[in-house]
Amino acid sequence: MTRVIAQMSVSLDGFYAGPRFDGSGRDWMESAESAGFFRVTRWVIDAMAWRERQGFAGGDQNTNSDIVAEHFAAAGAYVMGRRMADGGEIPWGEEPPFRAPVFVVTNRARETLQRKGGTSFTYVTGGVAEAVARAREAAGGKDVAVAGGGTVLRRVLQEGLLDELELHIVPVVLGTGMRLLDADLDLADKEAIELTPVRVVHTPEVTHVRYRVDGRAPLVLDDRGSGGS
Amino acid sequence: MTRVIAQMSVSLDGFYAGPRFDGSGRDWMESAESAGFFRVTRWVIDAMAWRERQGFAGGDQNTNSDIVAEHFAAAGAYVMGRRMADGGEIPWGEEPPFRAPVFVVTNRARETLQRKGGTSFTYVTGGVAEAVARAREAAGGKDVAVAGGGTVLRRVLQEGLLDELELHIVPVVLGTGMRLLDADLDLADKEAIELTPVRVVHTPEVTHVRYRVDGRAPLVLDDRGSGGS
Repeated sequence: MTRVIAQMSVSLDGFYAGPRFDGSGRDWMESAESAGFFRVTRWVIDAMAWRERQGFAGGDQNTNSDIVAEHFAAAGAYVMGRRMADGGEIPWGEEPPFRAPVFVVTNRARETLQRKGGTSFTYVTGGVAEAVARAREAAGGKDVAVAGGGTVLRRVLQEGLLDELELHIVPVVLGTGMRLLDADLDLADKEAIELTPVRVVHTPEVTHVRYRVDGRAPLVLDDRGSGGS
Repeated sequence: MTRVIAQMSVSLDGFYAGPRFDGSGRDWMESAESAGFFRVTRWVIDAMAWRERQGFAGGDQNTNSDIVAEHFAAAGAYVMGRRMADGGEIPWGEEPPFRAPVFVVTNRARETLQRKGGTSFTYVTGGVAEAVARAREAAGGKDVAVAGGGTVLRRVLQEGLLDELELHIVPVVLGTGMRLLDADLDLADKEAIELTPVRVVHTPEVTHVRYRVDGRAPLVLDDRGSGGS
């Protein structure tokens, strides 16, 4: 059964990149956004499973690499934000690492881009729910992976479309940057999104916590802390 | 050897309470601040070790309770923010749960408050570093526990006084509230605080991750993601 799964590397203070690069001055690779991004994704870049997919040599064959391989193997289709898709278009080259259909949430219509190795980029202008629905159809019974960035992940969570969330919590405090779980979730007063942790995998570089998303629930007053039972 | 250890229950989006109660309208127990606070500390209130210390009946004897008991046992002295100390003064009553000297960081001088069971509250007006130094002296070789709230914890981290941080990550997204790791850490551009996870204890209610604080470090450009080795 197809599940919709998102995963993201975040710092201990919840950032997936440094402060957003405004395009001026030096290039993105030298920006604070890039510095934060490469810090929280260092464990991925070190993983053999990721490097193989990129066509790069080297890397570590370890638990972190197994987690990367697991995500690639589970995904039958991807949902992606426009900024990530645009940013990746050149570095991913002729044979991107996804090897599956990618549905890009965008306001700008564009023809589907066919790449080698099974990857295609389809530009969906009808919103995130339509992108998820089309990815579900294309996934062939495998999972739909929400591949980032933060804006599209939050939108999928906000609209109740997410079944599982895996956070790769990296032991660093960045202090500032692009925060994954920021305030635009449209929650009511004293309303929360409840989850259940279903797996924790612990390595020195990163703590991988997978959650089942249980959905919105009210925050009820619990006064057993005053001695009641 | 005395270590300075902080621990805090936080939501998945990093909040330790709902939005700060402004004192108007209904009482604190009915505020959004309280609703968020009781959600992230529910695992503590359910723990037998915590209830025993409060003089309350019941509670669960489980892994979460063991974590609470461990923190109480390790602490030879406490450092606490003024708002938490003021808020606890009445509910903690004549025999507060600390059973050790508590040093309260405050701008307002006040005589030391002696309570039953070994707890005292000493009001320190010389800043957080002085409070930590006095707690170190009083700890008798045991640990100094930074008992909250978020402001004093951030100050201890910012000033490089913290040896270990244990986050109790509760599987709920609050969307808004008082965030533990907020931006007042005084980090430079492309500077971060590095940590090393030293223990993860996983329960259905909460993921306990203990970190050693390694200190400030620059974020260096890592371009192996471009294929270099």
